Amino acid sequence: MTGTSKRASTRNRAVVGAENVGAQSCKVALVGFGTVGSSVARILCERSNTHLRLTHVLNRNVARKKVDWLPPSVQWTENIDDVLSSDVDIVVEVMGGLQPTEDWIRRALQSGKSVVTANKQLIAHCGLELVSLARQMKQKIVFGASVAGGVPVISGLHEGLAGDELFKIRGILNGTCNYILSQIETNGIPFATALREAQKLGFAEADPTEDIEGLDARAKLAILTRVGLHCNVKPESIVARSIASIDAVDFEYANQLGCTIRQISWAELKTPELKTPESKTTASNSESNPKSKADLLFAAVQPALVELSSPLARVEGSQNLVVATGTYGGETVFGGHGAGGNPTAVAVVSDILAIARSKQAGMSYAGQPVEKTPTVTADFTAKHYLRFLVKDRPGIIASLATILSQCSINIDSVLQKPDCPKSHLPFLITLEECKASLVEQALQQINKLDFLVQPCLHLPIL
Amino acid sequence: MTGTSKRASTRNRAVVGAENVGAQSCKVALVGFGTVGSSVARILCERSNTHLRLTHVLNRNVARKKVDWLPPSVQWTENIDDVLSSDVDIVVEVMGGLQPTEDWIRRALQSGKSVVTANKQLIAHCGLELVSLARQMKQKIVFGASVAGGVPVISGLHEGLAGDELFKIRGILNGTCNYILSQIETNGIPFATALREAQKLGFAEADPTEDIEGLDARAKLAILTRVGLHCNVKPESIVARSIASIDAVDFEYANQLGCTIRQISWAELKTPELKTPESKTTASNSESNPKSKADLLFAAVQPALVELSSPLARVEGSQNLVVATGTYGGETVFGGHGAGGNPTAVAVVSDILAIARSKQAGMSYAGQPVEKTPTVTADFTAKHYLRFLVKDRPGIIASLATILSQCSINIDSVLQKPDCPKSHLPFLITLEECKASLVEQALQQINKLDFLVQPCLHLPIL
Repeated sequence: MTGTSKRASTRNRAVVGAENVGAQSCKVALVGFGTVGSSVARILCERSNTHLRLTHVLNRNVARKKVDWLPPSVQWTENIDDVLSSDVDIVVEVMGGLQPTEDWIRRALQSGKSVVTANKQLIAHCGLELVSLARQMKQKIVFGASVAGGVPVISGLHEGLAGDELFKIRGILNGTCNYILSQIETNGIPFATALREAQKLGFAEADPTEDIEGLDARAKLAILTRVGLHCNVKPESIVARSIASIDAVDFEYANQLGCTIRQISWAELKTPELKTPESKTTASNSESNPKSKADLLFAAVQPALVELSSPLARVEGSQNLVVATGTYGGETVFGGHGAGGNPTAVAVVSDILAIARSKQAGMSYAGQPVEKTPTVTADFTAKHYLRFLVKDRPGIIASLATILSQCSINIDSVLQKPDCPKSHLPFLITLEECKASLVEQALQQINKLDFLVQPCLHLPIL
Repeated sequence: MTGTSKRASTRNRAVVGAENVGAQSCKVALVGFGTVGSSVARILCERSNTHLRLTHVLNRNVARKKVDWLPPSVQWTENIDDVLSSDVDIVVEVMGGLQPTEDWIRRALQSGKSVVTANKQLIAHCGLELVSLARQMKQKIVFGASVAGGVPVISGLHEGLAGDELFKIRGILNGTCNYILSQIETNGIPFATALREAQKLGFAEADPTEDIEGLDARAKLAILTRVGLHCNVKPESIVARSIASIDAVDFEYANQLGCTIRQISWAELKTPELKTPESKTTASNSESNPKSKADLLFAAVQPALVELSSPLARVEGSQNLVVATGTYGGETVFGGHGAGGNPTAVAVVSDILAIARSKQAGMSYAGQPVEKTPTVTADFTAKHYLRFLVKDRPGIIASLATILSQCSINIDSVLQKPDCPKSHLPFLITLEECKASLVEQALQQINKLDFLVQPCLHLPIL
């Protein structure tokens, strides 16, 4: 945690501002108060100007869990009936597991509450039934946090790319595998060593089977396949292969082939109509019979070689990345933090806000901070790149250094390409971090110097 | 255009299926029938199972524009009043320009129609007023296509990351500049040459000022700043610097520093409360006065050095990429095709579907193809990587090659690291493209061979 905890302690305001709680407020119950649950509570607590109000926190042994930074109005409970019998609008399930979670979610929907869940196994296994139950009850179940944590890929596929016809989804969906493979690659260590180290650092669980064998990723792939490719796929029907057989030598060979190795989740839909013009008859059959078996879904979670130039090759540590390919829009990439309390909580809170917005037309701007009208400046503090083109002669660096030092700017490095003509000599000075305005001030003097063939080019270094 | 045109000609079905047009259908008018407009029409035409119905196409000299692949029910017109006086639900503006576009959009909203627009200059300049007018008229104006074409970054910031508190947005928002800079970098040519070539290839306009000088990107940055950072910023208040002064030598120097050069759009919000605990008093002042001048927005569009390891450095050709940074979720990346008829049309159609969904609760699944229940297989066709660990002896390659050839599999390459122990010799065979099932069949025989120290590792090469 970075500034979060500090800000919480200095800004212990009522949950989403008691000042905002009115007819429009939307009541939220949190089921599960572990890493993700407490991050969700913290965001709800710290963010003002939303109409969300946290009313219940449910956890086993809830007494142990109580924190002092939530408002006293929050009811702490171990009993789901306290939540279900209340007037809560949205039940947020961040408890995990298949049971009693599924029962509780069903009962929440049946009690006329909408549900936000981060539970990938549950959604992969019975998401369709739950969505259908929700629709029947005129409620919503939203599960943006169930895949890729803070990366908004579910809403991206469902809404942002709704206008496309997606046919391929590839992704790195398991941070543990990606971390372990990165470690084997970088340090040339065996798989077993990399796994042990990941366990020590908390990047892998004591029983790492779900991650290593690809079972975690295939649940996520099943969800993405449903949302993006509109295919009902049971996770068990997707082949999952372990990364345990990958050795350091494989990265050496992969590199010789211009590749690296990653655990890749891949789903690709082949509809007969897409194949050839001749298959047109089949295509119209398949249209009149949408459940035609002619649709074929290639899907697997497995270690694979990916070209170093692919965005999938560049995913570092525990990051997640999804590449969606559509008939019209080509490839679209979504990347970010795939796990962790805060990123996952962002996805959960975004889902809560989406439901709140849909519940109340008047709340279309719920969750938006008050609009700001800030002072705008381009005066970034950054390292700077100054490239000169000069007519060479002695004393050039000295003149430049003097002006820079008078402006309190420190030189970081001086670089000069070999074999350049003396009459048009390009050379480089990089500056330590300073304000852009200081650099411009110095350049007003520098650009008057008579050895310059053209004005100095200055760029920030980000 | 890839498969699109072919599919259009083989599947010339009525716009979004006359079979679907019922009480629930949502009528769409297209204002502008250029590259983006005709792509939008094509997608509406080819995609079935939506409840969208294209009813009007407006363009100057409309007779010249008529195509035979739209259903005869579509009304072609040059007169905006035909659209405004009709019972159209959504007016899609893909005409561009500030006038008469602004007037037409205002009149559409005032006539009780929602609006989808791809017009970045218009939204950057008067988006707030138009959003406010739409709200007043209980309509919507949506502009996902106005920034980064097919990359769903507006919906990503507004919905997917709604739960976060974003404070920084960096992006490559202009494909023309990115293409020109990539060409200078790759081919070591001067800026002027790269620009001329981009113009010849249609990647830059005859008058490239808007792109080169950063005016196009800053309009987009102003929109992202409003959507993501909730800051009202006029595009003119954002400093824009030209890329025209970048020379090939700058890429050489940048490379020595581990960087490349890109046109970067950057906006970063500094709120006083984030600075130090001491500024708490200021912070609460700023809370009670949300328009406090203490908010400072750093914003500029300019060429800048970016580290080669940054996702911004890896954006190729005319791709776009946006990195959003939030207090809770860290960095999230959105990337894809920033321009072009089809990708931009995907964004437009996604926006149409979003409005359609919000208009009719019963349409929450509008735009979704019928759910498929495909046959699932992992039998991808791919190149394959076979890594062996063997006890070396003569004839190993011969035995393996024989089995592979019996299975009709072609060897692509054989690689062997130097200096490995004869008793544990790792070596590699790569295979030409073939089905995974063929490889597995061959491996059943191969894994019985007595020179193997462990079973062969096989991975697909993506």
